[in-house]
Amino acid sequence: MFVIITYDVNEKRVHKVCKKLREYLLWTQNSVFEGELTKGKLNKCLAELEKIINKEEDSIYLYTIENPRHLKKTVFGQEKCNDDLFL
Amino acid sequence: MFVIITYDVNEKRVHKVCKKLREYLLWTQNSVFEGELTKGKLNKCLAELEKIINKEEDSIYLYTIENPRHLKKTVFGQEKCNDDLFL
Repeated sequence: MFVIITYDVNEKRVHKVCKKLREYLLWTQNSVFEGELTKGKLNKCLAELEKIINKEEDSIYLYTIENPRHLKKTVFGQEKCNDDLFL
Repeated sequence: MFVIITYDVNEKRVHKVCKKLREYLLWTQNSVFEGELTKGKLNKCLAELEKIINKEEDSIYLYTIENPRHLKKTVFGQEKCNDDLFL
């Protein structure tokens, strides 16, 4: 399935959340990650994120689209996502 | 259709971009807006955004899902989106 995750977490935890998300998804821009994941991997990712975040302060939004063909993505201006940054 | 827009724009233009997006969509968190829009309204919104952004520096990602039933949204932690902020 196609997954978009956006986060708004306390700066103390931003680095940990980012690092975890990079293990599973592609950084898009600012606090947005996206990519294709199996349900199993997504659940693993979420379980790991739940250990990192503080539910009273932080916020993680998960959007899932079972069939990636139902999603259309368009970029205006610069495409900031760059895999090379993480190699 | 359901629309998710994320932006990464130079701080000089953040306020204008935000203000424009609020006319059409609901603020979710950080630099993310979402909501249901007709194709006509979406095109109007995009045309207006293109007048604001600098395509050499800024970046706007648009995700559209024709049928909102194909999208599942889950929030972990705090739901930061709050209409009251904009009343």
